[in-house]
Amino acid sequence: MSHHFSTEIPEGDNRPRRVCQECGWIDYVNPKIVVGAVCTWEDKILMCRRAIEPSKGLWTVPAGYLEVRESCEDGARREVKEEACAEVEIESLLAVYSLPHISQVQMMYKARMLSADFGVGEESEEVELVTWNEIRWDDLAFRTVTWALRHYREVEGRETFATFSNPEPI
Amino acid sequence: MSHHFSTEIPEGDNRPRRVCQECGWIDYVNPKIVVGAVCTWEDKILMCRRAIEPSKGLWTVPAGYLEVRESCEDGARREVKEEACAEVEIESLLAVYSLPHISQVQMMYKARMLSADFGVGEESEEVELVTWNEIRWDDLAFRTVTWALRHYREVEGRETFATFSNPEPI
Repeated sequence: MSHHFSTEIPEGDNRPRRVCQECGWIDYVNPKIVVGAVCTWEDKILMCRRAIEPSKGLWTVPAGYLEVRESCEDGARREVKEEACAEVEIESLLAVYSLPHISQVQMMYKARMLSADFGVGEESEEVELVTWNEIRWDDLAFRTVTWALRHYREVEGRETFATFSNPEPI
Repeated sequence: MSHHFSTEIPEGDNRPRRVCQECGWIDYVNPKIVVGAVCTWEDKILMCRRAIEPSKGLWTVPAGYLEVRESCEDGARREVKEEACAEVEIESLLAVYSLPHISQVQMMYKARMLSADFGVGEESEEVELVTWNEIRWDDLAFRTVTWALRHYREVEGRETFATFSNPEPI
């Protein structure tokens, strides 16, 4: 299949899009969704050291792109399994962070590990269960990881809370 | 620009993707985000009759695709402005609905109109402010509109509530 694009505003639209001059197909570019989870076992939080760029070698909570034909909760569970070889139950939606500068929306869940078992997934260099005081704040991979951990701490033990959004401009 | 795609699993990935055999570009297809809002003025809710397919002629709350370089809240405000010519303040995230069968995630906000002013946007045939009892339940455009309205009603007047997700299988 081959497309020859030029940029124009399609009829009924109000923004420039890439339109194939041969078949008329419109290449709508949309923001991407990242799903992840702050996963806990007793008083410990599951952290992964990234084996891939961006931020290789730094620490994150399990997270990654939502796939087509997947619910947000299923996507978050899959990422935890892929990156940390752990099984979790999704408890609630902790936060939705908008990152318009990279056209990304991050949906972070609060999740409970079903056992203390975990492992090192393909995209991780190391995986650990750590207490709050053991979190490596200076070596976190992304600002949204810091936000999610702090937001988690703010509602720890609470059953009902309002889902957080960006706590500061990004 | 021209691509010649074949489907293969890229290195380090675990799913088939369309990969250009000439330049190596990978056409990742991701779920799309719809942002919308249940908007209120006093005890009334802002409803739009769709002028476009799908569900042309049926009623919805203002909603549409999030654009690149846009936060979710900005996107919801823009959709309200485009479809109902109204200005709103976003109050909280009412619900996140996953529609995996169409690879869509809908983020529905609770919003307060800044005045009673509204109008008929380009994608609407008619726009109205209606009370709960005036909602045309049999003529709603999508199941998620019914869900969002019911979820809105459940937390009406409450300041803190947990963001809803799908209330039933879809």
